[in-house]
Amino acid sequence: MKQQGNLLIPEFQDMLDAHQRIEPYIHRTPVLTSSFLNELTGAQLFFKCENFQKAGAFKVRGACNAVFGLDDEKAKIGVATHSSGNHALSLSYAAGRRGIPCTVVMPHSAPQAKKDAVRGYGGTIVECEPSTSSREATFAKVVEETGADFVHPYNDPRVIAGQGTCSRELIEQTNRLDMVIAPIGGGGMVSGTCLTLSNLAPEVKIYAAEPEQADDAYRSFKAGKIIADDAPETIADGLKVPLKDLTWHFVSNYVTDIFTASEQEIIDSLKLTLKRMKIVIEPSCAVPLAVILKNKEIFRGKKVGVILTGGNVDLHKMPLND
Amino acid sequence: MKQQGNLLIPEFQDMLDAHQRIEPYIHRTPVLTSSFLNELTGAQLFFKCENFQKAGAFKVRGACNAVFGLDDEKAKIGVATHSSGNHALSLSYAAGRRGIPCTVVMPHSAPQAKKDAVRGYGGTIVECEPSTSSREATFAKVVEETGADFVHPYNDPRVIAGQGTCSRELIEQTNRLDMVIAPIGGGGMVSGTCLTLSNLAPEVKIYAAEPEQADDAYRSFKAGKIIADDAPETIADGLKVPLKDLTWHFVSNYVTDIFTASEQEIIDSLKLTLKRMKIVIEPSCAVPLAVILKNKEIFRGKKVGVILTGGNVDLHKMPLND
Repeated sequence: MKQQGNLLIPEFQDMLDAHQRIEPYIHRTPVLTSSFLNELTGAQLFFKCENFQKAGAFKVRGACNAVFGLDDEKAKIGVATHSSGNHALSLSYAAGRRGIPCTVVMPHSAPQAKKDAVRGYGGTIVECEPSTSSREATFAKVVEETGADFVHPYNDPRVIAGQGTCSRELIEQTNRLDMVIAPIGGGGMVSGTCLTLSNLAPEVKIYAAEPEQADDAYRSFKAGKIIADDAPETIADGLKVPLKDLTWHFVSNYVTDIFTASEQEIIDSLKLTLKRMKIVIEPSCAVPLAVILKNKEIFRGKKVGVILTGGNVDLHKMPLND
Repeated sequence: MKQQGNLLIPEFQDMLDAHQRIEPYIHRTPVLTSSFLNELTGAQLFFKCENFQKAGAFKVRGACNAVFGLDDEKAKIGVATHSSGNHALSLSYAAGRRGIPCTVVMPHSAPQAKKDAVRGYGGTIVECEPSTSSREATFAKVVEETGADFVHPYNDPRVIAGQGTCSRELIEQTNRLDMVIAPIGGGGMVSGTCLTLSNLAPEVKIYAAEPEQADDAYRSFKAGKIIADDAPETIADGLKVPLKDLTWHFVSNYVTDIFTASEQEIIDSLKLTLKRMKIVIEPSCAVPLAVILKNKEIFRGKKVGVILTGGNVDLHKMPLND
């Protein structure tokens, strides 16, 4: 890690260390291809299937790195976070594997399936109201009472170093990619991708894909400073969170461009993936394919790594009936 | 191949030749695991994902072997079959890749998606009434008129040798399996599995899984002779066809046992696979998991290869809403 201003920035060696640390607890997920989607897009697509990852998403990489990087004394006290999504599951999974306490602050309105999964992994849930102020107050109290180590869902150098292990595998599993594209929400996966590729394969361009209805990263990128959305609504619910200082560092320095897709384009790509690739993905993961279909001239003839970030979805809510 | 009575039986070398012949046209599909399903069953399960296969199912292995094994003169005349399922798609795909004609006799009531897919691969459809007599009469006419080579969906030594390549890969991709289980309909996949494993890994036990509502293979196995069902109905619609003499040869000689599962057990296993493994499979592929859950004492503590045969399914017909 290197200090830069008030930021602690993860370096390439941190990603390598992370990979060694987390390997026993994660899947080396497969890379799938689809001739149909190659023909449709005119590109050669290599899908990195983090929907098959432990706890159902790439987030387990960063969470495991944070949890297994703690010294024994700190670990004993445990970890805490606020999340109603994949980070909550992942941190609980990681803490469960190490046998240490994990507290997750979650709005009481969070899906029952997510609550059950956190508890299934051995995590403790503290419920709050579904507002930022309630979440922050509740979380501060949890940290004060437990002394737990706060593992932020993405704005944490240990988490970013962990997420970077995904594109290291992708590079090893493919042959000379031209570009990599990943969905962007808070920017943890994209930052990890930047960290790894800027060192390991600096010729590979990095693109990010975002829902039009939650396009804060796109607008930030164009404006040259962080702009946060006010309570965006999108089917790609993993991508509603804003960039923070550490992820902005990577996005602003290493990303070539950010593209957006409409809700309908995201749904169409989700269906295409289900039907043609026979895999279940979260709506968030469908945004890159939507963006590739919408900007064919950028991707045509290129070898493109596409990071499918997760597969935790309520199947009965999937838009399959039309 | 060896002649035995009036049967032409494929041998181990035929499977090896098939593998070399078809490799450019098929995927070496990945093997996935699930800690959740391992805990639930008490076994170690290794899922061979033929749902990711070209044309969406393992059937492309046998079809490619038949098509690419023809000499140029015969190939020019083309191939034909009767099927409204994965074999129709697979044979059209194989013929399309070789650039030769393929005619498929299909009931006019077959799903539009299947018809579109056959035509998309370049196949010609000749429609018949949805009865055995109409199908047979129509098919005889097609063969008479075109002189095409008949590639039976499963009762063909070239097809069985092709299907056998799947378990060869599975053995290479895993470490000392105790058993392999596959769904059984006409018995093409199970026969290919028997052909390969009886030579390559004779210590591996072979089990077959069948819907209770189409249990002709189960009853045949217990009776020691082929018994055909009269128009069975099951959600596992790939498994409605009966054993034939060549597949019966393999099933009766090499299969350790056949187990059945109810419609509800098949649906429950299908949902479990979607939710926990994040993959789309045909209902037929859910029968082995249903059988493992129902007969835990047989599989507990064992390393079990599970062949997921295909992923061609109408998503809006999937029972996801309860």
